[in-house]
Amino acid sequence: MVQGIVNWNTGETQEWLQQYVDDWVSFYRKHTNDGSVASYIPILQEADPNDLGITIIGKNGVSVRSGDTHRPFTLQSISKAITFIVACMERGVSYMLNRVDVEPTGEAFNSIMHLEMKPVKKPLNPFNNAGAITVTSSLPGETSAERLEPVFQLLERMLGYRPRLNVDVYESERDSSTRNRAIGYYLLEMDFLESDLDVTLETYFKQCSIDVTIDDLARLGMVLANDGMDPKTGGEIIPRQVARIAKVLMLTCGMYDASGKFATYVGIPAKSGVSGGILAAVPPRVRDETMPFTDGCGIGVYGPALGEKGNSIAGIRLLRHIATQWDLSIF
Amino acid sequence: MVQGIVNWNTGETQEWLQQYVDDWVSFYRKHTNDGSVASYIPILQEADPNDLGITIIGKNGVSVRSGDTHRPFTLQSISKAITFIVACMERGVSYMLNRVDVEPTGEAFNSIMHLEMKPVKKPLNPFNNAGAITVTSSLPGETSAERLEPVFQLLERMLGYRPRLNVDVYESERDSSTRNRAIGYYLLEMDFLESDLDVTLETYFKQCSIDVTIDDLARLGMVLANDGMDPKTGGEIIPRQVARIAKVLMLTCGMYDASGKFATYVGIPAKSGVSGGILAAVPPRVRDETMPFTDGCGIGVYGPALGEKGNSIAGIRLLRHIATQWDLSIF
Amino acid sequence: MVQGIVNWNTGETQEWLQQYVDDWVSFYRKHTNDGSVASYIPILQEADPNDLGITIIGKNGVSVRSGDTHRPFTLQSISKAITFIVACMERGVSYMLNRVDVEPTGEAFNSIMHLEMKPVKKPLNPFNNAGAITVTSSLPGETSAERLEPVFQLLERMLGYRPRLNVDVYESERDSSTRNRAIGYYLLEMDFLESDLDVTLETYFKQCSIDVTIDDLARLGMVLANDGMDPKTGGEIIPRQVARIAKVLMLTCGMYDASGKFATYVGIPAKSGVSGGILAAVPPRVRDETMPFTDGCGIGVYGPALGEKGNSIAGIRLLRHIATQWDLSIF
Amino acid sequence: MVQGIVNWNTGETQEWLQQYVDDWVSFYRKHTNDGSVASYIPILQEADPNDLGITIIGKNGVSVRSGDTHRPFTLQSISKAITFIVACMERGVSYMLNRVDVEPTGEAFNSIMHLEMKPVKKPLNPFNNAGAITVTSSLPGETSAERLEPVFQLLERMLGYRPRLNVDVYESERDSSTRNRAIGYYLLEMDFLESDLDVTLETYFKQCSIDVTIDDLARLGMVLANDGMDPKTGGEIIPRQVARIAKVLMLTCGMYDASGKFATYVGIPAKSGVSGGILAAVPPRVRDETMPFTDGCGIGVYGPALGEKGNSIAGIRLLRHIATQWDLSIF
Repeated sequence: MVQGIVNWNTGETQEWLQQYVDDWVSFYRKHTNDGSVASYIPILQEADPNDLGITIIGKNGVSVRSGDTHRPFTLQSISKAITFIVACMERGVSYMLNRVDVEPTGEAFNSIMHLEMKPVKKPLNPFNNAGAITVTSSLPGETSAERLEPVFQLLERMLGYRPRLNVDVYESERDSSTRNRAIGYYLLEMDFLESDLDVTLETYFKQCSIDVTIDDLARLGMVLANDGMDPKTGGEIIPRQVARIAKVLMLTCGMYDASGKFATYVGIPAKSGVSGGILAAVPPRVRDETMPFTDGCGIGVYGPALGEKGNSIAGIRLLRHIATQWDLSIF
Repeated sequence: MVQGIVNWNTGETQEWLQQYVDDWVSFYRKHTNDGSVASYIPILQEADPNDLGITIIGKNGVSVRSGDTHRPFTLQSISKAITFIVACMERGVSYMLNRVDVEPTGEAFNSIMHLEMKPVKKPLNPFNNAGAITVTSSLPGETSAERLEPVFQLLERMLGYRPRLNVDVYESERDSSTRNRAIGYYLLEMDFLESDLDVTLETYFKQCSIDVTIDDLARLGMVLANDGMDPKTGGEIIPRQVARIAKVLMLTCGMYDASGKFATYVGIPAKSGVSGGILAAVPPRVRDETMPFTDGCGIGVYGPALGEKGNSIAGIRLLRHIATQWDLSIF
Repeated sequence: MVQGIVNWNTGETQEWLQQYVDDWVSFYRKHTNDGSVASYIPILQEADPNDLGITIIGKNGVSVRSGDTHRPFTLQSISKAITFIVACMERGVSYMLNRVDVEPTGEAFNSIMHLEMKPVKKPLNPFNNAGAITVTSSLPGETSAERLEPVFQLLERMLGYRPRLNVDVYESERDSSTRNRAIGYYLLEMDFLESDLDVTLETYFKQCSIDVTIDDLARLGMVLANDGMDPKTGGEIIPRQVARIAKVLMLTCGMYDASGKFATYVGIPAKSGVSGGILAAVPPRVRDETMPFTDGCGIGVYGPALGEKGNSIAGIRLLRHIATQWDLSIF
Repeated sequence: MVQGIVNWNTGETQEWLQQYVDDWVSFYRKHTNDGSVASYIPILQEADPNDLGITIIGKNGVSVRSGDTHRPFTLQSISKAITFIVACMERGVSYMLNRVDVEPTGEAFNSIMHLEMKPVKKPLNPFNNAGAITVTSSLPGETSAERLEPVFQLLERMLGYRPRLNVDVYESERDSSTRNRAIGYYLLEMDFLESDLDVTLETYFKQCSIDVTIDDLARLGMVLANDGMDPKTGGEIIPRQVARIAKVLMLTCGMYDASGKFATYVGIPAKSGVSGGILAAVPPRVRDETMPFTDGCGIGVYGPALGEKGNSIAGIRLLRHIATQWDLSIF
């Protein structure tokens, strides 16, 4: 495992920072025993529950990597943040906010009952499955390939390479996702979908099945932390308003029905997936100048052992520890 | 329109009874203006909203027909009672009661949220869509044709002819029923279904699309009123226990979320469908001997203009009037 | 313990009937071990969980008593049926049905959420606590004593004596019933109550705390079975329409959220209370002439060990056995 | 109306800043017509619906005041933030977070059903009424006066004077708050309350009835923005951890069921009350140096005309405008 801190500009390593992070990863790796890998999508069960890895990339190019940093894993619900951003870029922010609300719900990610309980005019937010599928239905294009093209393009602009669809995960997901089909038909009934349900679900399952690494997530997080601008060139990758809204949603709804607790104990906009990944965006902050990453940073975490709410159990604890030590909270 | 009261045995007509029923049908036909035909299945909108007809068949063979007695219409939710009976006959009563509860819910027929709200182990009753689809999934056979064969056979034994599937209605239903697919996938997720969802739904849409007349419904009601025995021969068509449970469910859950009001104001086991049909079974009762049909009767009603709960608006009022006049309540 | 069957008119005993019932009570007494006495009102915990008793009174005066027939116990939820009847008599049926709906809910008796979940215009039925408290608020009179006076008078007309308020139970109930106060304030907020909440709740707790025996319940049941008429004199005690509606509600909502199962397996209008009492009304029926009580009967059961839904566990099983043996079902 | 920007240290005024804010207040004052004053507490209806005022106080002492700055109004739900802070200071953070969760709910502030719908072990957050009343029950002391003493003391330390209880509002609130009593009894039933309900509710209604001005709210907001430290002296008024959690809750749950939209469009931790007040805390941020208040600021708004979610309608729009102009978002 190749690790180390590199300054993108100078190439210098900062040994002390690396040492700390290595110690923390070692410590929290034991916490993976408190969780278990996702079982509702069969292929996800093949992950190694003891994996834990983190990448932190700062605006100034300083980065830290530790633990199992090279495992590829699929985006799963993290893709909800990406497709929401793409849909806002393709269709406009106000258009999208007319189609999906931005209120946290307190319900599980796969809840369907809140759609029936009150006379809602749109799904409650883009990060529960009902809202996310609605967002996916808004992507332009006929086929799932056409719809995902701008998603892949955006990812490529941020990552420097075009990530790949994990076909095995996609097929496993497609073949096991009865709840999402239930939600999909319910949305169709409510007239919330903008396109054919089958294509929408195919697109949705594919967006969930894009392979990434924690380096990738950290890069995405860095762009969001930087309000959508490329941290190196300063060029706009995501419009500032869209990047901001994405961070708001990550904070209020990003960690399933533990979002409130994550905001309270960690205080960073983040989005998790049941594959065990977490994408976090730490905006710049005015704090003790001796702290690392005061200019903002992106963080990618991978730890497939999940807690009861579906978030990486060791990943959350590791993030809480780091956020406390380095005072990363946005509040 | 040929009408009249015939005694199956003697052929005698009872003019006075006929006169009363004709008057009542004329009176309540005006009430069809207070409702409107079902719109959620497109083809049902083609029905004539002013239609109203009733057939009453007594155990002793006396029958009364009045109004629009010859219109064919599809069973729709009335089929839920039939398939529940068939499933009990094919799989056993205790088997079926383990798969679906028998509690009224207070929710709309197409509600899905009660499945999520509490940790239910089975759908709450066989007459809301979730329960009915579960029942249909329990019918033996591979194809929808095989599964419906015992349904058609039971109907044929009661009606004396084999009713036909209305293909136009079936196709309209199949193509428009997103809510039922949502419910179906939810049931699949809960592991409530015993067979392939597509076949189950195809079977379900077909059972809803069987063409009948009010004479047919009255005959079905007469058999149920007679505890499952053929009123002429005394032979068992439906086991007594099954016929009884069907009548209980018709009383407690048969008229959608107006079942309590129908029980209160009419007091007869009945099952309605959105096509405007109502199947009612009046058990024999100890009352004033001068009343007609004290030996029990079956009643079929057709009136496609529906009230807000999905029941024939004039049909319910006509039944209420007759039940009050002749004291048909089981209470 | 004095037992035996007496014919009110002739004084004859029917030994064989008595023998059967004694055997069944002995058998089902063991089932009391499957339940436990109510704990949410402290004083109810003092009941002997192994008690089981039944009284059946026929229209013709034949009666059977067996088991623990002399234990006094409080009406608890059985009083909901009585006050609903009294309110209908005092205020009129249509007035009351405008204030409280008659739909079963599928929810627990003390549920409050269904009031918030949908835009209901009235409590869903008079037998859950929300509806029952609303009914009690409709009783005329200033003080709880004035409000209960017609309740006591009606009971006295049916029982031949004026039952007493059990002050210890009333005080225990009043002091422990936080949930009912929550419901009461919610009803006040919804503007459903017709009178002062404190007086309403005092009245409600008192109506629940009236001491009766199973003989009393059997007499009440007999009057209801007889459509409100005194079985000896034929005089009207309760208007027929009111007696009928009470029986409908007992069947659809009388046994908490096990009402559907009770209707399915027993098929008799009945109302239970957490004290372990059950009041059942068996209307006359056309069945095998050799069966006892074909002219209808009232049944009182006492068995304080409750099942999970709050009904006497051995009492329900005993009633199911008897109803099956004697074919008492109204269906 | 005396207005102007004063630098607490130098006394200098910044005319241009004042001019902008005056213009914006004039503009948004017209928006008060889109809302209406709260009606559920009778005395609140006496407010002038066209009032609108704002005070902004920066860390460096610069302040801006505009509009109706001298109207006293009661804290109402804003007090939920204060008592949560006091309870954390008195009982400890982990103690309080064990008693009340920190998850947004998506439900109305006065919802009770979420307590019944799932097997919750604690109210979902301290800012809906169920959670807030639970928090109030945790305040130490026997009488409401004793319980409120640390609340008043904390307010006095931040405001420089001891605010007064508005007895008229308290009495109006106490006499009209049936829903809060329903919630209170429900909490009692769930065993969530730590002290006598009557004292708890008395305390709760009193904390809602403390009179403040927008200057007061701005000072409170400034202390929270400054992580609990006195902006002048640097001394700790509120422990940093507690101030942080308060800001998290303000962002995720502070604006009733429009909290998600406020976070999305404004992006500032804020707490509103039905009196029309809004308390906002803007942490320091790294942004364009030419923007005002980059060191953080506290904001107090008053505008009693409310939108459908219970927040000051013009106040929210004014805050959105200012936050956009000066880039105050924490994201």
